[in-house]
Amino acid sequence: MIELQDYSIQFQDKNFVQLQAQLTTTAYSKVFVLVDNNTQMHCLPILKEALKAIELHVITIKAGEVHKNISTCQLIWRTLMEQQVDRKSVLLNLGGGVIGDMGGFCASTFKRGIDFIQIPTTLLAQVDASIGGKLGIDFGLVKNSIGLFNNPKAVYLYPDFFKTLPPKELYSGYAEVIKHALIQNNTAFAGLVNTASIDTSQWKLVVRDSLLVKKSIVEQDPFEKNIRKSLNFGHTIGHAIESLSWETDQPLLHGEAVALGMITECYLSYKLIGFSEKQLEIVSNYLLQLYPKYDLKRLDQAQVLRLIQQDKKNEHQQICFTLLEKIGTFKINVHASDALILEALD
Amino acid sequence: MIELQDYSIQFQDKNFVQLQAQLTTTAYSKVFVLVDNNTQMHCLPILKEALKAIELHVITIKAGEVHKNISTCQLIWRTLMEQQVDRKSVLLNLGGGVIGDMGGFCASTFKRGIDFIQIPTTLLAQVDASIGGKLGIDFGLVKNSIGLFNNPKAVYLYPDFFKTLPPKELYSGYAEVIKHALIQNNTAFAGLVNTASIDTSQWKLVVRDSLLVKKSIVEQDPFEKNIRKSLNFGHTIGHAIESLSWETDQPLLHGEAVALGMITECYLSYKLIGFSEKQLEIVSNYLLQLYPKYDLKRLDQAQVLRLIQQDKKNEHQQICFTLLEKIGTFKINVHASDALILEALD
Repeated sequence: MIELQDYSIQFQDKNFVQLQAQLTTTAYSKVFVLVDNNTQMHCLPILKEALKAIELHVITIKAGEVHKNISTCQLIWRTLMEQQVDRKSVLLNLGGGVIGDMGGFCASTFKRGIDFIQIPTTLLAQVDASIGGKLGIDFGLVKNSIGLFNNPKAVYLYPDFFKTLPPKELYSGYAEVIKHALIQNNTAFAGLVNTASIDTSQWKLVVRDSLLVKKSIVEQDPFEKNIRKSLNFGHTIGHAIESLSWETDQPLLHGEAVALGMITECYLSYKLIGFSEKQLEIVSNYLLQLYPKYDLKRLDQAQVLRLIQQDKKNEHQQICFTLLEKIGTFKINVHASDALILEALD
Repeated sequence: MIELQDYSIQFQDKNFVQLQAQLTTTAYSKVFVLVDNNTQMHCLPILKEALKAIELHVITIKAGEVHKNISTCQLIWRTLMEQQVDRKSVLLNLGGGVIGDMGGFCASTFKRGIDFIQIPTTLLAQVDASIGGKLGIDFGLVKNSIGLFNNPKAVYLYPDFFKTLPPKELYSGYAEVIKHALIQNNTAFAGLVNTASIDTSQWKLVVRDSLLVKKSIVEQDPFEKNIRKSLNFGHTIGHAIESLSWETDQPLLHGEAVALGMITECYLSYKLIGFSEKQLEIVSNYLLQLYPKYDLKRLDQAQVLRLIQQDKKNEHQQICFTLLEKIGTFKINVHASDALILEALD
């Protein structure tokens, strides 16, 4: 169990004993579960079996980041309204990042806020979305541009959910694990590099270590005024690449785009703040070995720049990067010229 | 000036000196103003004149409660995005309740929150929306059903804005003044009854007294877990009547509907928790003298009940009213049968 200020993250076995206890103790008037067609098929049966004493009202949406938008929110709000959900109801978000971010946003804004509990089913959602209270949806091609900060009542992690994940999805989540290690220190990063591939038997340790890095940063800066921006390493360029790739025949998963973002931002770090050429090479090679090659020339470079300019971290019309001085030491609010960004993409 | 925990409410003259000082001190990257076609015409010129040293980016939406919806939010978000608004920007909401509630909601959710400042231009918005942090929009015919709690950076009140209001609008706001007096005590209510009509020369005193009632209640219970529900007196039935009236050829203003709501809920108070027949008569006569007669039979009674069932205060499928034991003494979470509600409407 990881204890945070407002809630805790608990590892569960298939009986979900603590979740069950929480739902029973907090006399909720109704319990809703938000799923997508994937988690409805693969994860919901397990949850239903564990919680068979509790009546679950299921809301199903289509799977995929393209549905993380205001139309789907309206569908969710409308369903909650039709089911006469009151403020004493709770929404369980059973799924990956899309379900957690959007379900949390819908719960936080329905009747000005009902309780929600996160049950992330992907590695990405477990290591990224369990801590930090970032909720929201994509808008106007810009990822997570509409949203808010709000914490769930609890987060429950169940290992076997991601045994059913395609390897691509696991690797996508693993990019966040790598990012946390790069922010933390050289030992953590070297530990990952020395593990030939993703060791799923050790998932619980990997997730826990990764979450502890995030916990320590978020607790110091919950609203991303300063050091929390370190968690955006790889994301300024990564988000832009990800969004644009959806419009091509080769859409990227979040972690795949973040891996590319980390490579390009390591290059910026090397050019701008003294990240060593040696480390640049180690990090790039490691990431290129784990993630598929992707020709960034496929994307309209002007569009990439335009989207980077929309990044939430930017201030006073300046693009703000989080870059690495060396592994384990980061610098926030570093500006880079358009020319250098294009060079990095190249 | 009224000092609250997170911000203050300040009365301004036409120079808006304190607002100007705040905008200048807080090095905002861009200053946006949200107006509707009415406040664009009547209020914006005054603000522009006062703030002529500051570049204002104006966003105009159509006036009226029917536009307080998710489509208009999308328009506002899109404009902010096109103008490359960053997190260091600020949104000034210049208008009535619709502008304040919706503008505040859009600001609070754009890039997970930018600063906003409220400049309410109607009596209703000044006495009702200046305190309490309730933001949001209407959804599925249910008023304010999507939203959140968040405080502005400041509220500025300027008297002359509502000199240009039609009398109907002033009376609409005055219903909240009456509600605050009914919740406060008999002296406050008698003070209003003894003033033959609305005394606009005394507006500042009226607004201040009314705000102090709200302040004391909201500070004790910011998230409406208990006594803040007292402020919903007249609103459970009022909101339902208001929403349905929009679909008729005789739409009601918020305050007009709340006046009807207070009469019917005083009747429920009389039937259920010992509100005296004498006081029922005094309150009803006073309200009927100020507000236009409205035939509630025009509305589909089953629809009224259905909407009341959607009220945000309800819990565990029970309709929860705030009723009066006597003037100045309220009781929250009182249940009433459908039959009695229909009798009250009658």
